[in-house]
Amino acid sequence: MPEIAYVDGEFMELSEARVSVEDRGFQFGDGVYEVVRCYRGTPFALEEHLGRLERSAAGIELPLPEDARRLGELAVEALHRSGISESVLYMQVTRGWAPRNHAFPETVKPTLVITVRPAKPAPPDRTVLGVPVITVPDERWLRCDIKSTDLLPNVIAKEKARRAGALEAIMIRDGAYVTEGASTNVFAVKDGTIHTAPEGPRILSGITRSIVLRLAREKGMSIVEDFFTPGFLAGADEVFITSTTLEVVPCVKVDGRPVGDGKPGPVARALASAYSAEVARRIGQPPQAEVRGLMPHG
Amino acid sequence: MPEIAYVDGEFMELSEARVSVEDRGFQFGDGVYEVVRCYRGTPFALEEHLGRLERSAAGIELPLPEDARRLGELAVEALHRSGISESVLYMQVTRGWAPRNHAFPETVKPTLVITVRPAKPAPPDRTVLGVPVITVPDERWLRCDIKSTDLLPNVIAKEKARRAGALEAIMIRDGAYVTEGASTNVFAVKDGTIHTAPEGPRILSGITRSIVLRLAREKGMSIVEDFFTPGFLAGADEVFITSTTLEVVPCVKVDGRPVGDGKPGPVARALASAYSAEVARRIGQPPQAEVRGLMPHG
Repeated sequence: MPEIAYVDGEFMELSEARVSVEDRGFQFGDGVYEVVRCYRGTPFALEEHLGRLERSAAGIELPLPEDARRLGELAVEALHRSGISESVLYMQVTRGWAPRNHAFPETVKPTLVITVRPAKPAPPDRTVLGVPVITVPDERWLRCDIKSTDLLPNVIAKEKARRAGALEAIMIRDGAYVTEGASTNVFAVKDGTIHTAPEGPRILSGITRSIVLRLAREKGMSIVEDFFTPGFLAGADEVFITSTTLEVVPCVKVDGRPVGDGKPGPVARALASAYSAEVARRIGQPPQAEVRGLMPHG
Repeated sequence: MPEIAYVDGEFMELSEARVSVEDRGFQFGDGVYEVVRCYRGTPFALEEHLGRLERSAAGIELPLPEDARRLGELAVEALHRSGISESVLYMQVTRGWAPRNHAFPETVKPTLVITVRPAKPAPPDRTVLGVPVITVPDERWLRCDIKSTDLLPNVIAKEKARRAGALEAIMIRDGAYVTEGASTNVFAVKDGTIHTAPEGPRILSGITRSIVLRLAREKGMSIVEDFFTPGFLAGADEVFITSTTLEVVPCVKVDGRPVGDGKPGPVARALASAYSAEVARRIGQPPQAEVRGLMPHG
């Protein structure tokens, strides 16, 4: 089961995959990306991820080197070549190689990189035990709706969380309102209503966030998509985070203080289950047949 | 005169230089950099640039792979190997290769990239004619004092300037105050006093900025290092920008409206001359002997 990469038209082992030191992705963070979780050989919510990749690219006027359909075919081919069943598919598009200069190059030949790596298995009791999180100032740029690789503030926030023994750093913009986690969306439940930051330039609109909100609506849960304060977060009955690789994770401590009764709450647990069921439903059975069905040359 | 690169211990032609697609510089913008202008084969203000590289790296807890002295030796060796007399030396350090994960890798082997390219000659009449600039919202992260490669907002701002036929985009934070340009520091002169944004997290403390401020002080000019408003910029007698590669450039139009009488003013012209003289003084004669003197194996 080799770790696979695709770079500009060729498949290779991930360890061999290189880009120019003058790739604008390396020198300027001039690119966008997606991370897709693959279950039993099948990418989950691939269409939604490709749609967001298109929107991110459009947001920085970056032409994609292939249309979404072809990108999807390449992704599935990479998965197939890797043979890794439970995997993380990574896709990155940059504004390509050019002699260093801030403004866009006259002629852009975008760089496309796809990698496939094994997914890190989550601790099986994570949903039952919940995780601690911390809060940090949101120091990111003002277009967080664009999924760019300018991730240094996210890296620093996540490292702070790691050092604090926490799984995630929840970001507070201007000391005033919760935006999202370093690599997750954040939800607070109070009196049965789910609160989460609204789509817009201050958060990345998570694919998992959208699916979880839909599942919550289907369950008749009450949802408020509006910013809430750090104080509201601290006083919430439940807090949970969502992401493609983490799925739905209850948070039982924020900055060392217990959330609610200090145990995962019913809303987070119900949505974690519903999300797992949604994955199972969409991935279906048998997984290998699905992969073959999607294969471009299958 | 080959364009040269140094990557992790080896010199090569720039066109051959590659990094892993999983370099954290490529996937996370997890790195810092410097740009040094070299005149007649000699790097200008190399010590100051290396000092700032150390501060940027410390700001993100990135260990440099070599100490500043050795980095300087490598830079000079790269220059020497290129044989390019008027050049731009680029140095980038990233948190190295690691399987993708936001938090710092357990073991960090930083990537060091050095490139040498010919400097683009400035139009000889730029200081006489001045240049147009535009203003744009400052959408960058809140640690602009760290010279990281998370430059997408700068790229977008510079591209806006280019499309407007302007040389630079001056950034306005929160609609309230001028910070700096996409790749320059910004100065406004009013009633003989030079105003520029103060050092701190909202600007990158430019090496050229520091030298120009020192030269201005030596000339007895009055300086205020404090933020000023877009209105103050629009009503300034003079506006000018500074950077390593642009040096000192008078701005004669902001957003299409003339600055002062629409011609480069006496303060900008005096400082442009003083900066050129400072370069000549520090580069000295004969340049080739200086390069040899600095050579590690010379």
